[in-house]
Amino acid sequence: MSGLFITLEGPEGAGKTTFIEKLVNDLAAAGVEALATREPGGIEIAEKIRTIILDKEHTAMDPRTEALLYAAARRQHLTEKVLPALQEGKVVLCDRFIDSSLAYQGYARGIGIDEVYSINEFAIQGAMPDVTLYFDIEPELGLKRIARNAGREVNRLDLEKIEFHQKVREGYHLLLQRFPDRLILIDASATFDSVYQNAKKIIESQLAQVGILNKEF
Amino acid sequence: MSGLFITLEGPEGAGKTTFIEKLVNDLAAAGVEALATREPGGIEIAEKIRTIILDKEHTAMDPRTEALLYAAARRQHLTEKVLPALQEGKVVLCDRFIDSSLAYQGYARGIGIDEVYSINEFAIQGAMPDVTLYFDIEPELGLKRIARNAGREVNRLDLEKIEFHQKVREGYHLLLQRFPDRLILIDASATFDSVYQNAKKIIESQLAQVGILNKEF
Repeated sequence: MSGLFITLEGPEGAGKTTFIEKLVNDLAAAGVEALATREPGGIEIAEKIRTIILDKEHTAMDPRTEALLYAAARRQHLTEKVLPALQEGKVVLCDRFIDSSLAYQGYARGIGIDEVYSINEFAIQGAMPDVTLYFDIEPELGLKRIARNAGREVNRLDLEKIEFHQKVREGYHLLLQRFPDRLILIDASATFDSVYQNAKKIIESQLAQVGILNKEF
Repeated sequence: MSGLFITLEGPEGAGKTTFIEKLVNDLAAAGVEALATREPGGIEIAEKIRTIILDKEHTAMDPRTEALLYAAARRQHLTEKVLPALQEGKVVLCDRFIDSSLAYQGYARGIGIDEVYSINEFAIQGAMPDVTLYFDIEPELGLKRIARNAGREVNRLDLEKIEFHQKVREGYHLLLQRFPDRLILIDASATFDSVYQNAKKIIESQLAQVGILNKEF
């Protein structure tokens, strides 16, 4: 792979979406082509899988079924969209990836981080992100920000309670210890400008390491 | 688990379906309640997953995505249908289970038996069959029998070539070596009566072992 694979993690309301939009624009201005995506990302097979996962009627869905479906959608999105872009030398910014499954299904839903990691290893076959920015925020603050957002439909995950979001955050903090070289904590409770500048520095350093851009952008 | 979990393996045309029908009837006559099923088995979530797998338009489907989807459908069918029946003490006859994934995806499609086994271990969480009857038959003979069958729609797997079916058979023969205590080869090229009598003896012995039925049926 010749591009740079960056993933963004953290709860809704942490500012990932706004961050990615600005970053893609600033990279473009510096002449670096970036692909912003998130599973299922318009990939037909992955979209259909996601529809099954998010269907509110599917109250009988077993947590392990759900984890396998996330891994399946991940695999298809990766092979059809992420890997081709990386092979073209692009920067790929993916909003959520393997760590979401580890934190949500593995830790918060109690399946086990190791077990969920094993099916995701099968799914990604070594295509781990070069760097992962974890946008850390108090669940209460994140949920307040979500409430300000405009009306997308409520899905199953939204209905989970605040204690669950606290558990997810604990999961991410365990992952920070487990993958200290790849996962970097960004304090997302700060102002957007501050968050952006912090994260931008990290990405500049990564771009320089792979020789894509050897200056600030 | 208090029932008996029996799975049937082997290609289409090997006589599994006819065998299961007769076995369920004979067990019922002997006062033993048996559930005959096959994934997705009317389980809504599993049916929807299967629809994605079998859609002929999905030519871009990656083999690992497919393997994860089979594992997901397996999990849901297992938790909603197989395990509850076993807990009620029933005999469950499942037409295809983990070994199909190992032989088709793991071996014939080249993903690797160990790798496909790992995601299926995640899916079944120790709920391995008590005994598995592998109906062994030359691919040519099996396909001839299929051609005699009435018109269900052609799906992606039917379109695979004869060399692929040969490869699947090789896969099953590797599994016979790997799971010698669980997997039992039945020569399915023989007459149905002969196949039935052979398999029935094995099942009688299993039923006696778990104390469900201590006589011939």
